Parts: sequence; C-alpha cells; structure tokens
Amino acid sequence: KINGDRLWDSLMEMAQIGPGVAGGNNRQTLTDEDAEGRALFQKWCEDAGLTMGVDQMGNMFARREGTDPDALPVYVGSHLDTQPTGGKYDGVLGVLGGLELVRTLNDFGLKTRHPIVVTNWTNEEGTRFAPAMLASGVFAGMHTQDWAYDRVDAKGKRFGDELERIGWRGEETVGDRKMHAFFELHIEQGPILEAEDKDIGVVTHGQGLWWIQVTLTGKESHTGSTPMPMRRNAGLGMARITELVHEIAMDNQPEAVGAIGHIDVYPNSRNVIPGQTVFTIDFRSPHQDVLDAMKARLEKEAPKIAEDLGLEIAFEEAGHFDPVTFDDDCVAAVRRAAERLGYSHRNLISGAGHDACWINRVAPTAMVMCPCVDGLSHNEAEEISPAWAEAGANVLFHAVVETAGL
Amino acid sequence: KINGDRLWDSLMEMAQIGPGVAGGNNRQTLTDEDAEGRALFQKWCEDAGLTMGVDQMGNMFARREGTDPDALPVYVGSHLDTQPTGGKYDGVLGVLGGLELVRTLNDFGLKTRHPIVVTNWTNEEGTRFAPAMLASGVFAGMHTQDWAYDRVDAKGKRFGDELERIGWRGEETVGDRKMHAFFELHIEQGPILEAEDKDIGVVTHGQGLWWIQVTLTGKESHTGSTPMPMRRNAGLGMARITELVHEIAMDNQPEAVGAIGHIDVYPNSRNVIPGQTVFTIDFRSPHQDVLDAMKARLEKEAPKIAEDLGLEIAFEEAGHFDPVTFDDDCVAAVRRAAERLGYSHRNLISGAGHDACWINRVAPTAMVMCPCVDGLSHNEAEEISPAWAEAGANVLFHAVVETAGL
Ligand SMILES: NC(=O)NCCC(=O)O
Ligand SMILES: NC(=O)NCCC(=O)O
Repeated sequence: KINGDRLWDSLMEMAQIGPGVAGGNNRQTLTDEDAEGRALFQKWCEDAGLTMGVDQMGNMFARREGTDPDALPVYVGSHLDTQPTGGKYDGVLGVLGGLELVRTLNDFGLKTRHPIVVTNWTNEEGTRFAPAMLASGVFAGMHTQDWAYDRVDAKGKRFGDELERIGWRGEETVGDRKMHAFFELHIEQGPILEAEDKDIGVVTHGQGLWWIQVTLTGKESHTGSTPMPMRRNAGLGMARITELVHEIAMDNQPEAVGAIGHIDVYPNSRNVIPGQTVFTIDFRSPHQDVLDAMKARLEKEAPKIAEDLGLEIAFEEAGHFDPVTFDDDCVAAVRRAAERLGYSHRNLISGAGHDACWINRVAPTAMVMCPCVDGLSHNEAEEISPAWAEAGANVLFHAVVETAGL
Repeated sequence: KINGDRLWDSLMEMAQIGPGVAGGNNRQTLTDEDAEGRALFQKWCEDAGLTMGVDQMGNMFARREGTDPDALPVYVGSHLDTQPTGGKYDGVLGVLGGLELVRTLNDFGLKTRHPIVVTNWTNEEGTRFAPAMLASGVFAGMHTQDWAYDRVDAKGKRFGDELERIGWRGEETVGDRKMHAFFELHIEQGPILEAEDKDIGVVTHGQGLWWIQVTLTGKESHTGSTPMPMRRNAGLGMARITELVHEIAMDNQPEAVGAIGHIDVYPNSRNVIPGQTVFTIDFRSPHQDVLDAMKARLEKEAPKIAEDLGLEIAFEEAGHFDPVTFDDDCVAAVRRAAERLGYSHRNLISGAGHDACWINRVAPTAMVMCPCVDGLSHNEAEEISPAWAEAGANVLFHAVVETAGL
C-alpha cells in the first residue's frame, strides 16, 4: 500500500503554489505559478531518482527504469494546471498519485519489468487557451503542434510564446513516445460515488464534448434613446441562446449536459445596447448520436433567434472530442485492484474530459476515480478526504504495478 | 450666425485626442486622454479671452464677462468625456458649440449684459464610474462630493484619486455658482429628427432613469460532470432576467425602454457553470408612474426567477433620476431662436440623460438638439453633418444671447 500521509502532504505543499482567493488554487497553464509548480514536481521526481524528459508542448515525463530493456513504459499521470478558481485536487491528485506510487516502489525496493513514467500534461483545463487537453491532444495526433502554439489567451498571448517564456518548452518531439499503457487517477468531479458511498469509480467510458463559440453581432447604440423596435441587441440574443442551450440539455438529460460558461460583451457599458457578444457553449454526452443531435439542433435554432433580433451569427468549433470507450484490459486491471484491496467500487462514465481520453487513442488506457465532496469541482471549495485520496492512489498503484509486472 | 467651419474644425481637432478603434473616440473620464482634451479646451478658452475656473469635481467654467456687474451668468455647455467606443459629437458638440458662440461674439465685438460661462461637466457618461452625470449631479446637490469621490471603476480605482492624478481637481466648492440660466446643445442620439427631416429639436422633457445592479449567486461547478438537476447556474438566471427586462420594456414601449449593457461573469471559464453574475439594468421612461412600475415589476418577478434556479439575488441602485420638465421660458427661447433663423423644428423628449437634467433642478434650463445619422450614438460610427452642427450652434447662440441680453 502507498503512504497516504506522504501523498496528502505533497498535495498540500503543491496547493501552496498559486493560491486562489477562497482556499483553492489559481495556477493556470503557462503562468509563473505553473512554472513554480512544475519546478517543485521536478525536484520531487529527482529526489525519487527519476529522469525528467520534456517535450515541445511542455509535457513532463519522469521515468523510473524497468528490468526489461525491451519493455515499453507504463505511463501514469494527469495535470498540474488549474482553473482560475480551481480546486487543489483536480489533476494534481493524478500526478502526485503517480509520484507516490514510485516513491512506494522505492520504499519497498521493488523493480518493475516495464519502466514507469509519471506524466504532467500541459494545459488540461483549457481555460486560458482553448481547447482543453491541448497537449495530450497534440501527443495523440489530434492537433498539430503549430496550431496549438497559435492558440491565444484573452490578452492575445500565444501558447507557444508563453511556453517559451516560462522556460518549459523542451526539445523532444511530441508524440514520439510509445506506451505500454496509460493510467490516470482523478477525482470524480460529480456526485455519484459519494452519494452511493463507493470508494472507487472504475471508469469505463468518457463523455464526448462540443465547445461551440458563438459570435452575435448587432449594433451598439444608446440604451436610453434608441426606440425598442430599432434595437439589434446582441445581449438579448445571447440570453435566448443561453435558454436554448439549457432546453437542449434538459431535453436530453440525464444522457447529456450543457451550459455557457464564458461570455464577452462589447462594449460592456451600462448605457450601451450590446453590439456584440461572444460566448462558448459546452455540450456533452456519452452517446455520439445525442452529442451530434444537440449540436445540430443548436445550429438550426440559434440562427432563427438571431434573425428575429436582426443579429448576425457565426459559429466556431472551439473544442471537440468523441465519446470514449476505455481499454478492456486496463479497465479490468483497475477493477481487480479495487477488489484485491477490498474497496467498494462501481463503473463510471466520466463527465469531464481528461488527458486519458486522448491518450486512449494511442495506447491502452483506463482511469481510476475517487469521490469528491458534493460532487463539486471547478470551484475553490473542491474537497476530498485523505482516505479517498489514499484509496484512489492504492488502486492506481496496484493496477499500474500489475500492468508493469514485478 | 456662428462660424460653422470653425466649429467643425474644432470638433475634428478634439476628436484626435483619445481616438477609438473604428473612427470614433475612447476618451473616458479621468483618463490621460481626458486630461489632454481638457487642456486643449482650456487653451482654446484662453485664446478666446475667457477666464477658467475649476471646481473640486473637475468641472470647468470658462467665463466671458458681461456689462452688468450684478447679473448672474448664463451657462452653456455639456461634456468632453466619451464612452469606451463613443462618437465624436456626444457631449463635445455642446461644449464646443458654447465656445463657438463666444468666439462669434468676439468676432462681432458684441458684449452681453449677463456674463456667459462655457462649461465642461466631469464624467457625464458614467461608464467608468457609475452613475452618469456624476459631477453635474453633485453640483445640483443630488449626491455628496464624498460619495462621488468614493465611486470606483472596474479596476478598483477611486474617482477622487483619479481626478487628483490627472491634475484636474480644482479648489472651488462644487455648486456654489448661481446661474441665470443653463443651455445645453446635444445630438439627439435617437432617430426622430432625421426621420422627420427636422433641423432642430426643442427639448421639453427628459426621460427618467433607473440603473439597477443585480447580483445573482449560484454555485460554480464543472460543466461536464455536474448533473443538470444539481446546477445553480447564475448565467441562466441572468439570461432569464435579460428576457424579463426586455418584456417589461416591450410591454411599456413606446413610453419606455430597457436593456442590460454591462455584465460580469465569474469565473468566466468555458467549462465552469457561472457561480456569479453581476449586471446592470437600464430602465427609462418619461413618465414617473411607468418608470416606478417597471422597477416594481422587476423586483417582484426577478426573485422568482432566481428562486426557481436556486440562486440568491441582490439589487443595488446604481443610478437614478426622475423624469424632467425643462423651464418654460428657456424652452421658449430655444423655439424662438429656431423660428427666427428659419430652421424646421419640433418638440422632443430626450431619451438620454444629460447634465441639463440635473442643472434644471437649480437653474432655469433648456436643451437644443440636432439630428444624428440613423439615430446612432454610443457607437464609434456616430455621425452628424456639418450643416446640422451649424444649425444647432446657431440656435444655441440666439437662445443664449437673447437670454443674456445685448
Ligand atoms: N477534468 C477536467 O476538468 N478537465 C477539463 C476539461 C473538461 O472541461 O472536461
Ligand atoms: N447623453 C448621454 O449619452 N448621457 C449618458 C447618460 C445616459 O445614459 O443617458
């Protein structure tokens, strides 16, 4: 079994970097805080005797050698970046759970046949630079590196420039590594495990996602002196599309969710009718047909809303992945580990996207989940218990070691 | 008659300061650009032989002496600050029209019995620091100066500190000046004069206004993994209140208007359900009862919307003025001037708020309006013709000179 106290201490130490305003974290990707978090992780890896590799997307790979020189490594990890008002565990638990697994092998003086590589994927959250899981997506061949470098944040800064600036652009070609398997431990970010009092989620599938950026263009004009019939109010159009998105999700739930999280209003002045609004819709479903139907309905009905209000509408695809089915053998290894350790468990569909969803396309992959309080995530109040973290890391440890061979 | 070319040249020269991104202006109050615009106006006033006074709100008063030492001055003016994406004429025409009137008196070597004071009121727009017409409001005793100094912009900067910083905090006590009358020339900012092919609007009334800031508090959480029934989506609440505001305005139009221009979303991340939204409603009507009824309906129905969605709601009054009836004699002077000069004219209700609306409470006041293209204002594309500007300034000249006596 892993050392639960040591894992918790490392989680709390990492949470010191990029503190939020309400007990959580703001350690967004490619900020100075991200660089500081990476440096701490690197130091810990070196202390544990691992060799660090960094690729041109800033993905970090900390390797522990195996006994068989021909065996491909088993990869394990997640991400250290957070939301602007994020929690202490989303992503971090998966990276430090991987590190703890290696520390435990060191404690016991154990060697695995396959090498083990603990990974920190760059920009999983996708808040600063859309889309989410950007670097694991490039690794899996879903995006080109040039395209990823050209993503810009709200201040117009390029991903490639910011990666260079914080000093974490490595030399290694992205995606060259071959994997025997990939395992990711993550908090559930939803309410099911806690509600059913289960220790472990065995993740069999992941929801697919569409991020659709909508630009509504009307005419900015004076709120006091423009008669109601002469208005082309891009804010009102956004309100109606917000309601439509909710309706589409409600019509398909529980097999779907949807909302708008990011909004820009121009010129955003109290006495100016909004001339333009730009906002991103997030639709998800584990079923390809539901996901496609939601997007199709939006693209059919939203233009009518715009037309009614004299607005121009433009759609831009800002992120996408298909629903995921994880690898049978890896999933079985996770389930066996939970059983061997006597943890209660159930199958889960991941509501969130994860680096594992992309890596699943290039290597046999599975995920372990542990509960989080009230299912709350993407919130500084995100919380888990040390016992939950320990159970998750133990299952990860057993699944990885079984797959890597002793 | 005034010199239309000279007026136009001054308008174009002022528009060089704080250029916008699309041909208009961004010369928001108490910015470096505002300071630059003030300095240019001051220089022009000195060149015209006027004496500048500045009060503790940064209001500028450029005085031309009269022949009667006991006569109170006739004031004329408007504001030089603009919206973030504002036009070249909103406010500026009224200040430079006042200056042109003085230059014309100088050309003809004419003396008036009453002194004439050309005024630039600070922070009319209210975008950077709510409410609008802040400094004329303090002048008229509607707000205390301390309260005005404590207004903060989106970056948390105080009005008082910014006024000090740009070097335009004068020594004079605000509101000490007594006025014989006040006249303000302004573009209509609405479509009526152009549509009816009238040269001049004789402004008899002004709409009243309520700015109501609403804060909706829900719970930020993960857009992918939070089940639909567990959401407390402050963005959806804002959408529904946007629709309600539109409905209330539509139910009362053409005797009312309403919209939401300013919106803040927290944390504003694509995959986070908004945990809080803060936005300002702008309701207007020329009828006190309609204005009150709109506000009452909002305060009754919006809390139900919030409750349905599990949101907390809080209202804050961010600006208010009652409907205005301008002074009969001053209005008649404007109408006589238009007739004397042979301009077509009609009575108007001002859709926008103006410094004249506050000054009307402490001095006999009236306004002159000229058309603007497509009724468009609070937009960089705001446009007027030189002939419209000239007609407006001529009417202002005649009304002021008649009131000041030759
Ligand atoms: N796990 C997680 O929150 N990932 C961010 C991408 C997503 O929105 O699902
Ligand atoms: N004239 C003008 O646009 N004033 C700003 C205050 C208002 O919103 O009416």
